[in-house]
Amino acid sequence: MEAIAAANTGHALPYGDDDLTRSCQRAFDELFDTDTRAFLTFNGTGSNLIALAALLGPADAVVCTQQAHINLDEAGAPERFLGAKLIDVPTREAKLAPDDLAPLRELLGNPHHVQPAVLSLTQSTELGTVYQEDEVAALCGAAHELGMRVHVDGARIANAVAARGGTREALRRMTVEAGVDVVTFGGTKNGLMGAEAVVFLDPDLATRGELLRKQANQLASKMRYLAAQVMAILENDRWLELAGHANDMTRRLWEATTPIAGVVHERAPEVNSLFPVLPAAAIEPLREWCFFWDWEPSRCQVRWMTAWDTTTEDVELFARGIRHYLESAID
Amino acid sequence: MEAIAAANTGHALPYGDDDLTRSCQRAFDELFDTDTRAFLTFNGTGSNLIALAALLGPADAVVCTQQAHINLDEAGAPERFLGAKLIDVPTREAKLAPDDLAPLRELLGNPHHVQPAVLSLTQSTELGTVYQEDEVAALCGAAHELGMRVHVDGARIANAVAARGGTREALRRMTVEAGVDVVTFGGTKNGLMGAEAVVFLDPDLATRGELLRKQANQLASKMRYLAAQVMAILENDRWLELAGHANDMTRRLWEATTPIAGVVHERAPEVNSLFPVLPAAAIEPLREWCFFWDWEPSRCQVRWMTAWDTTTEDVELFARGIRHYLESAID
Amino acid sequence: MEAIAAANTGHALPYGDDDLTRSCQRAFDELFDTDTRAFLTFNGTGSNLIALAALLGPADAVVCTQQAHINLDEAGAPERFLGAKLIDVPTREAKLAPDDLAPLRELLGNPHHVQPAVLSLTQSTELGTVYQEDEVAALCGAAHELGMRVHVDGARIANAVAARGGTREALRRMTVEAGVDVVTFGGTKNGLMGAEAVVFLDPDLATRGELLRKQANQLASKMRYLAAQVMAILENDRWLELAGHANDMTRRLWEATTPIAGVVHERAPEVNSLFPVLPAAAIEPLREWCFFWDWEPSRCQVRWMTAWDTTTEDVELFARGIRHYLESAID
Amino acid sequence: MEAIAAANTGHALPYGDDDLTRSCQRAFDELFDTDTRAFLTFNGTGSNLIALAALLGPADAVVCTQQAHINLDEAGAPERFLGAKLIDVPTREAKLAPDDLAPLRELLGNPHHVQPAVLSLTQSTELGTVYQEDEVAALCGAAHELGMRVHVDGARIANAVAARGGTREALRRMTVEAGVDVVTFGGTKNGLMGAEAVVFLDPDLATRGELLRKQANQLASKMRYLAAQVMAILENDRWLELAGHANDMTRRLWEATTPIAGVVHERAPEVNSLFPVLPAAAIEPLREWCFFWDWEPSRCQVRWMTAWDTTTEDVELFARGIRHYLESAID
Repeated sequence: MEAIAAANTGHALPYGDDDLTRSCQRAFDELFDTDTRAFLTFNGTGSNLIALAALLGPADAVVCTQQAHINLDEAGAPERFLGAKLIDVPTREAKLAPDDLAPLRELLGNPHHVQPAVLSLTQSTELGTVYQEDEVAALCGAAHELGMRVHVDGARIANAVAARGGTREALRRMTVEAGVDVVTFGGTKNGLMGAEAVVFLDPDLATRGELLRKQANQLASKMRYLAAQVMAILENDRWLELAGHANDMTRRLWEATTPIAGVVHERAPEVNSLFPVLPAAAIEPLREWCFFWDWEPSRCQVRWMTAWDTTTEDVELFARGIRHYLESAID
Repeated sequence: MEAIAAANTGHALPYGDDDLTRSCQRAFDELFDTDTRAFLTFNGTGSNLIALAALLGPADAVVCTQQAHINLDEAGAPERFLGAKLIDVPTREAKLAPDDLAPLRELLGNPHHVQPAVLSLTQSTELGTVYQEDEVAALCGAAHELGMRVHVDGARIANAVAARGGTREALRRMTVEAGVDVVTFGGTKNGLMGAEAVVFLDPDLATRGELLRKQANQLASKMRYLAAQVMAILENDRWLELAGHANDMTRRLWEATTPIAGVVHERAPEVNSLFPVLPAAAIEPLREWCFFWDWEPSRCQVRWMTAWDTTTEDVELFARGIRHYLESAID
Repeated sequence: MEAIAAANTGHALPYGDDDLTRSCQRAFDELFDTDTRAFLTFNGTGSNLIALAALLGPADAVVCTQQAHINLDEAGAPERFLGAKLIDVPTREAKLAPDDLAPLRELLGNPHHVQPAVLSLTQSTELGTVYQEDEVAALCGAAHELGMRVHVDGARIANAVAARGGTREALRRMTVEAGVDVVTFGGTKNGLMGAEAVVFLDPDLATRGELLRKQANQLASKMRYLAAQVMAILENDRWLELAGHANDMTRRLWEATTPIAGVVHERAPEVNSLFPVLPAAAIEPLREWCFFWDWEPSRCQVRWMTAWDTTTEDVELFARGIRHYLESAID
Repeated sequence: MEAIAAANTGHALPYGDDDLTRSCQRAFDELFDTDTRAFLTFNGTGSNLIALAALLGPADAVVCTQQAHINLDEAGAPERFLGAKLIDVPTREAKLAPDDLAPLRELLGNPHHVQPAVLSLTQSTELGTVYQEDEVAALCGAAHELGMRVHVDGARIANAVAARGGTREALRRMTVEAGVDVVTFGGTKNGLMGAEAVVFLDPDLATRGELLRKQANQLASKMRYLAAQVMAILENDRWLELAGHANDMTRRLWEATTPIAGVVHERAPEVNSLFPVLPAAAIEPLREWCFFWDWEPSRCQVRWMTAWDTTTEDVELFARGIRHYLESAID
């Protein structure tokens, strides 16, 4: 917030021709330790579309999991904007493996079928799981071998990096060193008012990036306000600090709620989300007290998330509330 | 062929303003025994797109099976032309059931999700199975209850009707009486040179039909040549005769090949296709002798089809060839 | 800026389910004195696409001027997102007249041609001209008579209203009372960090508005930050005050520069832009001193604009600079 | 017609894997005297879309005349299928000149504007005019210099070649030697039942051609029937003979009608179309007797065309009719 207020001083040229935006580009080059092309955007859906549109040719398709945000939660924006098919692969934990790509080989060159061109991974995934560095590398290898490019939807990549050591080296190992071609780097879910970035790790892929940002309605005329936000989390690696804190709060919530009768955690959290199964009768009263999203309503599974600004007091209060509403429901 | 030659006499106005095309419209009204709007087209992919485009609004999606032709075999034309998502449901026999629609209810009204708007069924299916009349009616009921419309991809609907009694009444029971909104009526797979029709059973849905045919590149300037083909199979219900014959030939092929060691038919044929599993070593030599398509290469499953012009001699010859090549492969 | 900081206090539900966003909806209802449906967005291109997508059916086209922002300055986003043709009409002053719509009548019902469905006006126009209230009403009448809807691209509608009296009544006369169906209401060009609104004056047209906002990548998860911005200019009609000031500053700049030898103003300003023709040799030195955009480079025409925060000192300084650089160029 | 009947003998593999289709490819290589990639299609709109889609990248635009078939007469199929803008240039005679391309230069590299990527010419034009060989070469030079590719919509290229000498050399001079990248080669307007071809003169541009044909709904499963038609006009250069005949008949019609009071021919015909201005009162009675299309109704201009099968008796009869109805109208 203070960063934005500072950006509000003096005049600046529009559409990104300003010092703050240029600093952002340099900051991403340093972050990934390579020559990148970074484009600031408003939101995650827009970021993903720019990345994918840059990688797709005619009759090409994107391969992703069935749970992928681009597949489920973007209201068909990818199909509408890209005019391309998403091949959505069923998975158990929202993670793909190289074997999932094997059946794609028989599509290659067949004029009745779309051509698999981009593998899109979400890191950390929609189910709160994390690809390890060697898993990403194996997927990139399999994808490149089929002539495909690799996109990482990193709306929550900060949480994944925090879970894998919390250093810039961890980020680089799971992206540029693993062979990823383009990353959408999330900010909004990590404390920003509303700012994301599409970072092409291979600058040759970015030649149409600016045009695609405009076509995807993601060009901010007063871009310094986006740049100020992004700089605020890149400086001093605050992005890692904030995401690490969010992860810690989820682990604490998991510890505090595991003993509560009626709360079933099917696995320990890796990042900042829990997917507990609750007694049916408890869900609505609990939600009325404190909002959260359903996950799989048919099996009474919900999603709890912590954020960069969740406090230990918040966690304790919420855990007490859960205990209270579950006891009431069970009575 | 003779029908086309006859259409070649004298001049006629272009783009469907001719007597033959008008006869075709009347023939479809009689066939379905209702007021329809029929549009002649070149091929099945185009027909399907016109039907779907007429039924879709912004952010709408099409629900179909994973095996659906529109999902697998149209090179992404639906996504490109419609800008819409296909929600592809996994099935065992390429047939949907009302239960498959239940999870769609939670998408309704949620602005993060596409809205299910059209149910697209294939009759007979890509796996050679047939929806019974009450199955179609139940699906239409479930779909309409969700505010959805129903499209039938009838590239091989003639074979389904032949399998369900072989009368116009059977066709009507599985379409207009069951609640289907639009049918693409196949001709090319039933002996025509290249002609299909999109038949709107509810004329109110067809107001943009002509424009969509043009947009989908399916407007023939010399439409009488399409009309002549379609009339040739509608007259005297030759479409049923030809499809019934094709079905018979497949049954005969099934009987002739079931006893052959190495041929595994997993079920009896319903229409004009067989999906046998063969010994791996036999497939290539057999195919070189007489071409057929693979189905699931990983499990050595292939597809054999008979056509309107397959003869009993063809079937016997092919069965003898199979026996020969399988014996050679097993040796 | 202060409004945003205030929005930064406490937690709020995402995606617009918050008090600030609801206040915004009420504020628009009061502003237009009718029941509206308002959607907050990030930028003008996105706003326009949502409005147009809500009004277009298959094979429909948008009619606009050749100078329209949607036609020239959105990098083809309309064609890509809408899949629709823009029929761009040449005009002298970027304003359409009812006569321009007459030739559209022969397109109606012809299946070889797109169907004109939406008339899109820009108010104030890209050339700094303003539609008078009766001009808008006449255009709406002509459009509705052809079955078309009317969209107003109001990125600078505040400046037009300020020029036409500067009251809410003037806004209503040139929109809801004239027959306009949907307005995109600009904020960014009127002092906001980045926030716009699509306001459907006919709520029946807005049923897919939320989904389209998502599909157009314009859904802000933290929507209260957009709402805070928009409220800040709606309250106490600050939008009119700011735009009126910008208009005044342009008039002052026009007065100050008209006497300067070499500056040719082809007409008096109506809003906050001037399009002077300058001596070729003066343009680059002047621009290096203070940036502005070219307009028609081939005839040495440039564009000068003033903003909500331009001061009389800025104007005087700029006028002195112009005099200096033009004298140098002429020497 | 006989050619199609011959194609109806024996079985053949579908989707173009047959001898006739392969002969067609060889025939086009010989026709253009270069290594081409030819794709057979159903109609002209489909052909144009395949050609353009192969040449366009993200944010690219097509430049054409305002009268171009792709701009006016394809119901928005280009915008819908390509998602791209057509920049339509006003012209007097439906012909572009290199100067028309000059203003495109300032779009290059500007992220607010579409990028001009393809120049699409129609030969012979929608107004019956013909680009001379050096005019095409100059346009190709200007386009290539801007990094653009050149497409020729050759629905009536046979008539243009007939008008420019009527030899294969004339065809080559106005296409491959002039620098054209892809030609859509018309058949339907030159006597075929319904068959066209997209011919890539640079095979490197055709890598996605087969997929695009499928996506554009132009893949015929029984392609031999298209190939038989196309071969029928390529053999012995019957395409030139037929088009030359059509051109001759128009010249004869022009000669026969020029003396008729009330018929105003604004110029002599170059190919097989006339655009006379007639007395308003004569148009409807004449059209009722023998159908023709309006051209510019506001100025009583109509279009008369002759075809490959028009006879001198037809021409004489039509001329007599014109004289009769015009005398009646004038009385």
